[in-house]
Amino acid sequence: MSIVAVGSIAFDSIVTPSGRAENILGGSCTYFALAASYFTEVRIVAVVGEDFATEHEEIFRKRGIDTQGIERAKGKTFRWGGQYLDNLNEAKTDFTELNVFEKFEPRILRQYMDSKFLFLGNIHPTLQASVRREMNGVQLTGGDTMNFWINRTRPELLETLKVINVLLINDTEAKMLAGEGNLPRAAQKVLAMGPQALVIKHGEYGATIFFREGAFGIGHHPFRAPTLPIEEVKDPTGAGDSFAGGFMGYLASQEELNREVLKRALFYGGVMGSFAVERFGTERLQQLTREEINSRFQVFRELTHLE
Amino acid sequence: MSIVAVGSIAFDSIVTPSGRAENILGGSCTYFALAASYFTEVRIVAVVGEDFATEHEEIFRKRGIDTQGIERAKGKTFRWGGQYLDNLNEAKTDFTELNVFEKFEPRILRQYMDSKFLFLGNIHPTLQASVRREMNGVQLTGGDTMNFWINRTRPELLETLKVINVLLINDTEAKMLAGEGNLPRAAQKVLAMGPQALVIKHGEYGATIFFREGAFGIGHHPFRAPTLPIEEVKDPTGAGDSFAGGFMGYLASQEELNREVLKRALFYGGVMGSFAVERFGTERLQQLTREEINSRFQVFRELTHLE
Repeated sequence: MSIVAVGSIAFDSIVTPSGRAENILGGSCTYFALAASYFTEVRIVAVVGEDFATEHEEIFRKRGIDTQGIERAKGKTFRWGGQYLDNLNEAKTDFTELNVFEKFEPRILRQYMDSKFLFLGNIHPTLQASVRREMNGVQLTGGDTMNFWINRTRPELLETLKVINVLLINDTEAKMLAGEGNLPRAAQKVLAMGPQALVIKHGEYGATIFFREGAFGIGHHPFRAPTLPIEEVKDPTGAGDSFAGGFMGYLASQEELNREVLKRALFYGGVMGSFAVERFGTERLQQLTREEINSRFQVFRELTHLE
Repeated sequence: MSIVAVGSIAFDSIVTPSGRAENILGGSCTYFALAASYFTEVRIVAVVGEDFATEHEEIFRKRGIDTQGIERAKGKTFRWGGQYLDNLNEAKTDFTELNVFEKFEPRILRQYMDSKFLFLGNIHPTLQASVRREMNGVQLTGGDTMNFWINRTRPELLETLKVINVLLINDTEAKMLAGEGNLPRAAQKVLAMGPQALVIKHGEYGATIFFREGAFGIGHHPFRAPTLPIEEVKDPTGAGDSFAGGFMGYLASQEELNREVLKRALFYGGVMGSFAVERFGTERLQQLTREEINSRFQVFRELTHLE
């Protein structure tokens, strides 16, 4: 089933210990869509400026991604510059130019309305909630957020969390949102805010999914899927968004949503995140095969499978 | 089968966000021995000063640990003070007083010589190697080290690594020892230095074991066991040593050493580490039951078990 992804398209300038790249296609929606495109049909809702050229759109089109929802605005596309010289696990932002993204008001095309899956990328929680209201026929909504919204727009975020089924955030964000340093307890507090499931991403150590009692089946056990950088980490940009794309894309490809399916989705998230970091920008995500994805899924399964 | 553990006994003064404790029993050998004592007979080789009292020895004796190998020297026991106010994952050392530990030369009692398992705690690599030579009948030697020895005594450490079967270190130490930032590649480099298996501890995210080709069975897949702080983390001191104690203790309790056994041992390491941090010092490790240990093993197994 198709999935609608709302988020940013950007041009990134990145410096890592392996090298540098200038003005390459990036943004949360871009990584998400490319990763999800290996599992299901993806429709994107984003905004770009006049500098977004045919060659950029081609990157999406080649993966069969529906680009009709990309709004073209006067001005320049969102630009971000960052470096990972001191720490591969955390970007140091050199500059952020919001440009056309500053006034972004996501609009859902009529022909996107029949999608049953929705992913709300890291944008203002009020915009997230408004998209969710428009798409009132969706079966499952995934969402992301970040420290900035947790601190600055907490009341709005708490409203939005009521309509998000699966929230995907990292350890720091989960602890900050919950005001609690113990991970399992922080997870319970976040689940009490609305989501049926909470995915906490641990960077290179994988991710843990916590379920609200009774959601997606019985039981109260969390589940952890690993990840492991198989090749050298060339550029960590987009790993989390690619994780979300693999996770949500796999869910959207399944007939039924139960805990086993969500556990497998967590593995696919780790798989797509691990591919993303092997090359600069989206290069690796543009040219994967399902065989490569399945094979890495097996490697990660072996990594944690006790007889 | 019994295991001989060589390392430090200390008195620790610890400050964490949950409180503080002064001059409580600690040291790598202490945590290791208590954790391992739930699986097998443990014999310790360490040095203490005149301030080491009957009440301290009782903590070992109550767990059936053989304390005959504790040397009593003139002076004070090793003291360490540290705090975790900024970061629960990394101690900030307030003071280190080596005292009698400075001149520690481990001596193996004649009656310890029949032990088939040996754990070389974090001491000078030349001392580690000399103990290993003395104990020439051992079947499996585990070892720990740290940044200090990796930087200051690299040639001696490289010699010692040739006689260690399983090295247990953390991510930073593994990357530093290998001079390589990619974890799987760092692991291969360390394995080429001697050990048949390398356990890399990831703190609250568990640990990964890498095998040298052909060691403990066929295949080349690494394996990861999780850990999860079930209760509040009161005091992280000794988590890594307790991990090593659970890991080595379980190995020593098994008839055969194959990859499945080493994988299970990795789970028991995570289990014992997760218990250790629930109370200050060794409090929790003094009063566990096998039922509690088995039950947490099942929780961690559920955490990563894909149908």
